[in-house]
Amino acid sequence: MGLVVQKYGGSSVADAEGIKRVAKRVVEAKKNGHQVVVVVSAMGDTTDELIDLAAQVSPIPAGREFDMLLTAGERISMALLAMAIKNLGHEAQSFTGSQAGVITDSVHNKARIIDVTPGRIQQSVDAGNIAIVAGFQGVSQDKKDITTLGRGGSDTTAVALAAALEAEVCEIYTDVDGVFTADPRVVKKARKIEWISFEDMLELAASGSKVLLHRCVEYARRYNIPIHVRSSFSGLRGTWVSNEPQGDQPMEQAIISGVAHDTSEAKVTVVGVPDKPGEAATIFRAISDAEINIDMIVQNVSAASTGLTDISFTLPKTEGRKAIEALEKTKARVGFDSLRYDDQIAKISLVGAGMKTNPGVTATFFEALSNAGVNIELISTSEIRISVVTRADDVNEAVRAVHTAFGLDSDSEAVVYGGTGR
Amino acid sequence: MGLVVQKYGGSSVADAEGIKRVAKRVVEAKKNGHQVVVVVSAMGDTTDELIDLAAQVSPIPAGREFDMLLTAGERISMALLAMAIKNLGHEAQSFTGSQAGVITDSVHNKARIIDVTPGRIQQSVDAGNIAIVAGFQGVSQDKKDITTLGRGGSDTTAVALAAALEAEVCEIYTDVDGVFTADPRVVKKARKIEWISFEDMLELAASGSKVLLHRCVEYARRYNIPIHVRSSFSGLRGTWVSNEPQGDQPMEQAIISGVAHDTSEAKVTVVGVPDKPGEAATIFRAISDAEINIDMIVQNVSAASTGLTDISFTLPKTEGRKAIEALEKTKARVGFDSLRYDDQIAKISLVGAGMKTNPGVTATFFEALSNAGVNIELISTSEIRISVVTRADDVNEAVRAVHTAFGLDSDSEAVVYGGTGR
Repeated sequence: MGLVVQKYGGSSVADAEGIKRVAKRVVEAKKNGHQVVVVVSAMGDTTDELIDLAAQVSPIPAGREFDMLLTAGERISMALLAMAIKNLGHEAQSFTGSQAGVITDSVHNKARIIDVTPGRIQQSVDAGNIAIVAGFQGVSQDKKDITTLGRGGSDTTAVALAAALEAEVCEIYTDVDGVFTADPRVVKKARKIEWISFEDMLELAASGSKVLLHRCVEYARRYNIPIHVRSSFSGLRGTWVSNEPQGDQPMEQAIISGVAHDTSEAKVTVVGVPDKPGEAATIFRAISDAEINIDMIVQNVSAASTGLTDISFTLPKTEGRKAIEALEKTKARVGFDSLRYDDQIAKISLVGAGMKTNPGVTATFFEALSNAGVNIELISTSEIRISVVTRADDVNEAVRAVHTAFGLDSDSEAVVYGGTGR
Repeated sequence: MGLVVQKYGGSSVADAEGIKRVAKRVVEAKKNGHQVVVVVSAMGDTTDELIDLAAQVSPIPAGREFDMLLTAGERISMALLAMAIKNLGHEAQSFTGSQAGVITDSVHNKARIIDVTPGRIQQSVDAGNIAIVAGFQGVSQDKKDITTLGRGGSDTTAVALAAALEAEVCEIYTDVDGVFTADPRVVKKARKIEWISFEDMLELAASGSKVLLHRCVEYARRYNIPIHVRSSFSGLRGTWVSNEPQGDQPMEQAIISGVAHDTSEAKVTVVGVPDKPGEAATIFRAISDAEINIDMIVQNVSAASTGLTDISFTLPKTEGRKAIEALEKTKARVGFDSLRYDDQIAKISLVGAGMKTNPGVTATFFEALSNAGVNIELISTSEIRISVVTRADDVNEAVRAVHTAFGLDSDSEAVVYGGTGR
């Protein structure tokens, strides 16, 4: 039996009881003959409490010191977990990101992992210990400063360690039983996916599924590390994410993997753009210079009578104001009529590698929305995904309608256990 | 102007307001032209909260993991202090004990500093930053594990850094205005000492004065680092502890530096010990094998009629049970009659280098106690100290009587600002 990396989020270690429950689960894996490396997030609300403290002493906390502050959170949870494991009669050692060899760039608050040199971790597990590693944090290559990886960082730590340690699997423990065909909070009859390819998982993550973050899946695909997403509460088998189905996993890929939705975006429309070369480039250069990541871009043919066209795009709501300000400055140069900003939208996406070879998928999708009385405002497609933008108010009904139309409904109801960690 | 090391305890940084107040004081020193290195403890109750969490997951938390846990406390306070300083427009960087080069042995929970290699700190202050260092923690030389220095560890960190950085002075900020001639909580008219020698301060610390710990003073004496003990609340000049008086400090040493008291000890009497060679050695070998530190030891001449003697010693109350158990095991070998254990005692000590050349001191001391109706149970002396053991109930009255008898009473009342940090 090989080495297993297990990652537990903040909701799994929210209090002493949670930590003791996780300790038992970790020890089980060890008893089954695995070498075990555990990546752990900060306890429940710790991070929010630390952010609140920082706000009390400084309105704009500096990056380096903010990272120093936040990393106290994992230090607490990992030490407690090691103690709880030792209390069950097994040897455990905790390690900071720096001690575990998680080397990053110097971009504080959202550092990227450059390299992982897990010598101390390998030594520790070879000596019979369970190694506990702080998620979400690393040390910068040039300045040796403490860094944090930003949102979803602990998942990325786990996958990166799994790759460096050549682990058999990276188990991501969360508060749901796996990846579902839709958000079980919206679709009660969402079905747990037994196996999903890295590609489909990447599209789901990019389309608003919050179980795994895009960055972590990308890392796992690059190093070909199978991920097993499962619940720390139920202990049931969850969802395997990998290149190929393994063991008794379904050999044939479903046409549709799932329906994802996202209400965190807003829509900007640049109205009356002269339909000539270079206009779109000017617009999106302005957005890019403001360091705003955009998602969908839609431009339709221009009206023959006016020679003007409209360009719409979606972006995180939090970036809306910055985008509008950046665009206003280009108005004279581009010569557009006006800007429209709309943050009452939702994006609904259908993801599945099977849709390439099933021409009816698009039609079924649009019919389902239409039958539910949901109006489509924008459409954008990739090879294995169709996304539409609708009114935010329609999102739950739209997701349920599409889920049913593609025969994804399960016979039983999905279980949701708690909150979410980082 | 040279480099100054400032240390702030937990009560000084108990909340956001405290941290902002400390930030202002630090910036003042920087504005006065000093290079400034700040050593900081964990915020107010953080350590107790972490200890409580540990108790919830494990009855006997392991040393290594317990240190990992506790060091989260300083990580929080130091990052917040750095943010607060930056918010005042000055550059600051925080460093863990490990980053600051505090190298220790591997004895978790009470590690000793072996070496300090403050290269990063020197670089940081040379670049114009205020450097904030986590007190109480280091990294073990052999295993590179995080360690803590035990009680009073932050003071020791400050003095050790001051020595390594060749600082002009090590300022210890606390919740009183300096070192007093007696505990101002007991003696309202205790007087602040302007200057005191390392030797007298060591005796005071060993006799129960809690302002500075013995270990920290010892370190300062070895490297000849002047300590300035002062309040972070008032900003007044405090007490200088050094080899020689400096500047306008009193040139002549007072006969008596102060009266210290200690109610944390218990007394053990081994009754009816045969008065022959080797008996005392057997008794104290048993105590030493149990790793118990004892304080006073008193043995009187044996009664001629019986050839038996009594041996008494004092030790921390917390070690009482262990000591009695260790001694019971030697009973057959030593052949003593019985053991008496008494934890209702107090130790009162008079400290001052001047008493060597002033023969009346002892008599005045005993007279003062007698006039106050306080019975003396044990007496022990060193060159610059006399200690007596009395009933615990008598302690406050005894200290006040002795303080008055030696003319130490001040005209005004001492101020006590808050709780105490570590």
